[in-house]
Amino acid sequence: MRLVIIGFGTVGTGLAALLRDRAAYLAGRYDFTPQIVGVATRSRGTLYAPDGLDIDALLAAHQGGSLRDYQGAASRDLDPLRLVGEAEADVVIEASHSNFDTAQPALDHCRAALRTGKHLVLANKGPVALALTELHNLARENGRQVRYEATVMAGTPALRLAEVGLAGCTISAARGILNGTTNYILEQMTGGLAYADALADAQRLGYAEADPAADVEGWDAAGKAIILARTLFDVPLTLADLQVKGIIAITPADIEAAAAAGERWKLIAEVSPSGGSVMPVRLPLADPLANVGGAINAITYRTDLMADVTLIGPGAGQVPTAAGLLSDMLSLLQS
Amino acid sequence: MRLVIIGFGTVGTGLAALLRDRAAYLAGRYDFTPQIVGVATRSRGTLYAPDGLDIDALLAAHQGGSLRDYQGAASRDLDPLRLVGEAEADVVIEASHSNFDTAQPALDHCRAALRTGKHLVLANKGPVALALTELHNLARENGRQVRYEATVMAGTPALRLAEVGLAGCTISAARGILNGTTNYILEQMTGGLAYADALADAQRLGYAEADPAADVEGWDAAGKAIILARTLFDVPLTLADLQVKGIIAITPADIEAAAAAGERWKLIAEVSPSGGSVMPVRLPLADPLANVGGAINAITYRTDLMADVTLIGPGAGQVPTAAGLLSDMLSLLQS
Repeated sequence: MRLVIIGFGTVGTGLAALLRDRAAYLAGRYDFTPQIVGVATRSRGTLYAPDGLDIDALLAAHQGGSLRDYQGAASRDLDPLRLVGEAEADVVIEASHSNFDTAQPALDHCRAALRTGKHLVLANKGPVALALTELHNLARENGRQVRYEATVMAGTPALRLAEVGLAGCTISAARGILNGTTNYILEQMTGGLAYADALADAQRLGYAEADPAADVEGWDAAGKAIILARTLFDVPLTLADLQVKGIIAITPADIEAAAAAGERWKLIAEVSPSGGSVMPVRLPLADPLANVGGAINAITYRTDLMADVTLIGPGAGQVPTAAGLLSDMLSLLQS
Repeated sequence: MRLVIIGFGTVGTGLAALLRDRAAYLAGRYDFTPQIVGVATRSRGTLYAPDGLDIDALLAAHQGGSLRDYQGAASRDLDPLRLVGEAEADVVIEASHSNFDTAQPALDHCRAALRTGKHLVLANKGPVALALTELHNLARENGRQVRYEATVMAGTPALRLAEVGLAGCTISAARGILNGTTNYILEQMTGGLAYADALADAQRLGYAEADPAADVEGWDAAGKAIILARTLFDVPLTLADLQVKGIIAITPADIEAAAAAGERWKLIAEVSPSGGSVMPVRLPLADPLANVGGAINAITYRTDLMADVTLIGPGAGQVPTAAGLLSDMLSLLQS
């Protein structure tokens, strides 16, 4: 499997390192011997080598600040879109930054990948949230597939659970904790911290960005809710269709009132065939979602045959997200 | 897909009803149009009709006490083993009662199914726990597959999660609540009931059998632990290799001591490449397993790439178990 990786930040470099470190295991257990033949970055250039890039040299050049300094034979400075289209590759990995306004330039990369006969695997949520139907249609026309496990709960297989594990069931709703940063902040507030202090704590630990708006205002979770709505129910929700409320307005008094009632605040994303929302909700402690701590994510599927089925695991991070991309590649092997 | 169902108790009849009730959905969504061509029971005879049995008539005859009374054309009273071997069928479903001593007569049915070119799908834990390696070898020799999702946590896809969802990860250990009856009893004891009263309650609700030994002494969970050990680690544990302790000896004082320490008793099955156990364990409330209530099951996989991933759902019951068989059949469709 020859790979082109678009976006070489935390996730892309993590995937490269993972494929290097686990090469023997993946070859032995899955007969999977991927080669990275192309990499495109926003500001550090691009590389293309049809016979495969050396991952150590690739990571070294990237760390040095420019892929031009890659020690080895490769085409340098191809335009990313041309790289995607012209590369002799089996799979394009979209791991650049998520943009929910236009999904660009990633969406054009995705289109080019499918039109030129590559499978598409995404960690980038933008193209999935905004254009999943178009991408599926393009994939079908070209006999290829679109996979995006890493876009919801990173490598925790929320999408594979719905598609494969619960095959035969009808899912009527999904509700989950899809943002770890806010879950961490709410837990710290339950422990007595004020919102500002809990946020500072999350920033210090690297859970929250310097500008935390996407997390604390609920938009990151909303993007994932849209992906779930399209995947589970084929409902083309947009962010504007969702009721979205973050955790900013939650006060210590709110936290105390919930605790006094034997409940806990969680930022819950919920989707059903009739719509969706992201809202802080007081959950009774008997709800499996109420007990999900730290920066962990969780999702509960409501089904006809199995009642509620809940999956809990990491929802972010370099290695878990790379693991989600890897599991998608392995699923392509078998299809 | 032509099916032979061996064992027509709660699970087998549940599967037949499910396939009848969901026929349109399964045909529309999965292009799956199964036909039950054969049924074998322990005491109510057998039926075989190469063109398919009418499910309403089948269930009516079964309810009446004898498959001989089936209203329709069919061969009656074939020996079950001969039925399995001679039927023109694609899949044999083993849904008879689990026996962990010899796994017979089910094991012979399984061998006959694979040797005559049928796929094998099991809800019966005995053959999986005692002879999984042999069954896998027989399947390989005959170009067929063995599936047994329903043997662990019924239709909650514990096995599919490990195999498909966590593909690429190495699982180093699994620990879970694999018996709903004992989980219900422990929860009632946490609520203040004595063991005997909680057991009576579970029996009244149909969670526990009149002879509750297999549940409360830990052997049901132990059988599932063996299946997990073989599946995850290819370790051929037997019941004799496991340390098994049930919940009988837990006293109200034990329950109170745990509560005072902010902990909760759970019957935990644990397996790793080096062995396994089924033991009552005091878990801190932050452990996702500590908060699993009622007769629900749960499993936590410890992985290298994703840390802990936990799945929670029903672990028994007619419909959830039939759903597990169905998901196995759907996975055969795609393989």
